[in-house]
Amino acid sequence: MAKRKAQEFVKHITPREEDFSQWYTDVVTQTELMDYTPVRGCMAMRPYGNRIWELIQESLDKRFKETGHENVSMPMLIPESLLVKEAEHVEGFAPEVAWVTHGGNEELHERLAVRPTSETIFCTMFAKWVQSWRDLPMKYNQWCSVMRWEKSTRPFLRTAEFWWQEGHTVHATEEEAHEEALLMLEVYREFCENVLAMPVFSGQKSEKEKFAGARTTYSVEAMMQDGKALQAGTSHDFGTNFSEPFEIQFLDKDGQLKYCYETSWGVSTRLIGAIIMTHGDERGLRLPPAVAPFQAVVIPVAAHKPGVNEKAQEITDALKAAGIRVKLDDRDNVSPGWKFNEWELKGVPLRVEIGPRDIEKGVAFCCRRDTNEKFSLDLNGLADSVKETLNSIQQGLFEQANALKISRTKDVYNMEELNEQVQIGYARTMWCGDRACEDLIKDETSATSRNIPFDEEPFHDRCVCCGKEADTIMYFAKAY
Amino acid sequence: MAKRKAQEFVKHITPREEDFSQWYTDVVTQTELMDYTPVRGCMAMRPYGNRIWELIQESLDKRFKETGHENVSMPMLIPESLLVKEAEHVEGFAPEVAWVTHGGNEELHERLAVRPTSETIFCTMFAKWVQSWRDLPMKYNQWCSVMRWEKSTRPFLRTAEFWWQEGHTVHATEEEAHEEALLMLEVYREFCENVLAMPVFSGQKSEKEKFAGARTTYSVEAMMQDGKALQAGTSHDFGTNFSEPFEIQFLDKDGQLKYCYETSWGVSTRLIGAIIMTHGDERGLRLPPAVAPFQAVVIPVAAHKPGVNEKAQEITDALKAAGIRVKLDDRDNVSPGWKFNEWELKGVPLRVEIGPRDIEKGVAFCCRRDTNEKFSLDLNGLADSVKETLNSIQQGLFEQANALKISRTKDVYNMEELNEQVQIGYARTMWCGDRACEDLIKDETSATSRNIPFDEEPFHDRCVCCGKEADTIMYFAKAY
Repeated sequence: MAKRKAQEFVKHITPREEDFSQWYTDVVTQTELMDYTPVRGCMAMRPYGNRIWELIQESLDKRFKETGHENVSMPMLIPESLLVKEAEHVEGFAPEVAWVTHGGNEELHERLAVRPTSETIFCTMFAKWVQSWRDLPMKYNQWCSVMRWEKSTRPFLRTAEFWWQEGHTVHATEEEAHEEALLMLEVYREFCENVLAMPVFSGQKSEKEKFAGARTTYSVEAMMQDGKALQAGTSHDFGTNFSEPFEIQFLDKDGQLKYCYETSWGVSTRLIGAIIMTHGDERGLRLPPAVAPFQAVVIPVAAHKPGVNEKAQEITDALKAAGIRVKLDDRDNVSPGWKFNEWELKGVPLRVEIGPRDIEKGVAFCCRRDTNEKFSLDLNGLADSVKETLNSIQQGLFEQANALKISRTKDVYNMEELNEQVQIGYARTMWCGDRACEDLIKDETSATSRNIPFDEEPFHDRCVCCGKEADTIMYFAKAY
Repeated sequence: MAKRKAQEFVKHITPREEDFSQWYTDVVTQTELMDYTPVRGCMAMRPYGNRIWELIQESLDKRFKETGHENVSMPMLIPESLLVKEAEHVEGFAPEVAWVTHGGNEELHERLAVRPTSETIFCTMFAKWVQSWRDLPMKYNQWCSVMRWEKSTRPFLRTAEFWWQEGHTVHATEEEAHEEALLMLEVYREFCENVLAMPVFSGQKSEKEKFAGARTTYSVEAMMQDGKALQAGTSHDFGTNFSEPFEIQFLDKDGQLKYCYETSWGVSTRLIGAIIMTHGDERGLRLPPAVAPFQAVVIPVAAHKPGVNEKAQEITDALKAAGIRVKLDDRDNVSPGWKFNEWELKGVPLRVEIGPRDIEKGVAFCCRRDTNEKFSLDLNGLADSVKETLNSIQQGLFEQANALKISRTKDVYNMEELNEQVQIGYARTMWCGDRACEDLIKDETSATSRNIPFDEEPFHDRCVCCGKEADTIMYFAKAY
């Protein structure tokens, strides 16, 4: 009993209202998603966190392949001479590059960057691979980790090393590249909403906030439960910004040598941080079934009674056979109540209890993690009703998050309103488009421009900051 | 016509008999499996090669999970102070480490190794994660790339950066760790033989050839078509060699604090080189169906005739629906004959031709890549007969490779016979176990000890080298 109390104490989670940031840290570490390492700013993804990443990967990779992309693997080191070819790009990344200067006992002639992103090495190879219009488009993606020497880091949200995918594509025309950038943004939006149950704002970044080297950057921006923005994914239209310095040219149908148009796009393990801060509650994680390592956990109650463990095993096998990711927790050294708490902490969407009385009645007693609703499901056809319930949980989590997003987004007409709104969420503004206003808003409210939505009608005609004429809608929010 | 001739010339493959090494390089580059990069010794895996690696990963990962392993992701950089903790280990790896010395514009206090392998960081984390016997075993794996600053490199076989998996496990007892090391060796053997269609010698490495830091190293060794050995996978029993310096201790059931026992095991993109050199022929690759990006290619013949393209599409859809990885090659700018050559070069196991006469007869005309055998398959039930054929090709490739392995392995009784045998294959020897004999054999024949087989009976009682009493069987061969 003493031991159990001690463990319960360790597992205390700071309430979100009290300190959202500490709540996040508590959840991330207590759920064993990751751990800190002796390597500055670098985390280890433990099995539970890593499995979420694998499920994200599977789901996205399927989407990438369906939209005609192929995976490749590029070197993790990039010679400095390549990195500096595109001026804006190197300016953006150089301050946070980790440099390899020695191989074995020898000093290198040229230092090598541990890739912070791979545009420059992709472009170098594209210049070799692209000859004629028949080679186009080339639509590639790679899954890897990249390194950015960040000053302050937080698990999943900002780590020196992080895992991601980076798509890189080359096209014959400007239009095609533009469509690709928008297509992948839409893939991200659909993925965030349908798989992560996380509603997003989809739109175009400002000139100030765009990617170093891009012509246009698009993003999907999520809203965390503290109302702050988290940039969940970006897609860049490069035009010929990289193909010119890297000389990626192709012989077109008309016999002319032309520069290619390019895109790149990526999401990272940051999404795991986004899941936590979108869905988590006072008792820990709440995982959307689509990316939950275990979608259901089966817990025998009064397991010493005859037939209970056998029935629990039978149910587990049946759910597994139906393609449900299920865990049987048959540990005999902790109580059912202990297990309930632990799997709630870990965010398993559905708990399935089975005890002597349930068996007698031919049911399993269930509890939904999203609503805490408790109900019995008939053992006949259990797999089907569990699947239905999981769908309902997936939907339920999205709706809860979407309700928050709607309630914490507001049109604002002046700086005072803006400043007030970004304390709790997103401010929708009219913006004149000037960098000066963007900078001033940041200085005065610490909110940054998130993105310019597609297909929304102006709701006013004056800039929220300077009061001059404005026809651009811009979302502002404080951001992670 | 001029252009096509030029391309055919480019695609000339050096005959294996003439220069096996050049044949290998020709095949690797012409099939677009990889390409050289401006980063010293580092390759890019192009879509075709990368897809083979993905299929290898899927197949192995399934086996790892079935045997109770979980994936994690560890930092790619390792502080020097960790790397040096196990003396033999650092001695083995230090000469080939790439060092990060600067982060952004600052020099680091301690330099960081780009991981050459991850024992030291896994051990550091295990020391944190393992407390009690209830935490054991921990059976982890990670998929990543590692970096070894090799002096001379060859695509897939020896590259500065390579992709691999590394399993790392911690156990409560010596026996359990030992069993784990042997279990994973057996997983590798079964995988090499059943998935890669590549027969292997499974056994224990000599003291000289074992992994830096291991107590015992086991390996699976394949035989390439030139008779040379390729170490395809290794599994290490560490005993407490790492857990002692890293202080990985657990509180056992008896209340005693004890050191853990560990293993590690890995295979890499080297396996792709092994596939090429095991199965390739004068016309290029021959891929085992289990890891072929396309198991069948459908080629319309006389595609301008009515109904041909439609039927080709219909067949492709039917094969795809049956779970076969199939490619429809409906390009209109190259001839069917051109396509035949290209897909033979790329090693697609089965070619399915469909033309007006085939449609009339209700068949598809097929050609097996392994035997070049040509035959018709009824369009009714085509998917089933294609599956059967693919199984037969998988089996056929294994049998061809196994016949070579058997014919090029011979018992030898003295140095003259040994020297002669290692020119063409593996020499099975009796060996006294002395390092001096192992060294002398290497000096005189350039063959190295491969491994000591399990469960083979001594065929003689004298050492092949010194003539003293010997009861250990050792395979010797020249090696990649």
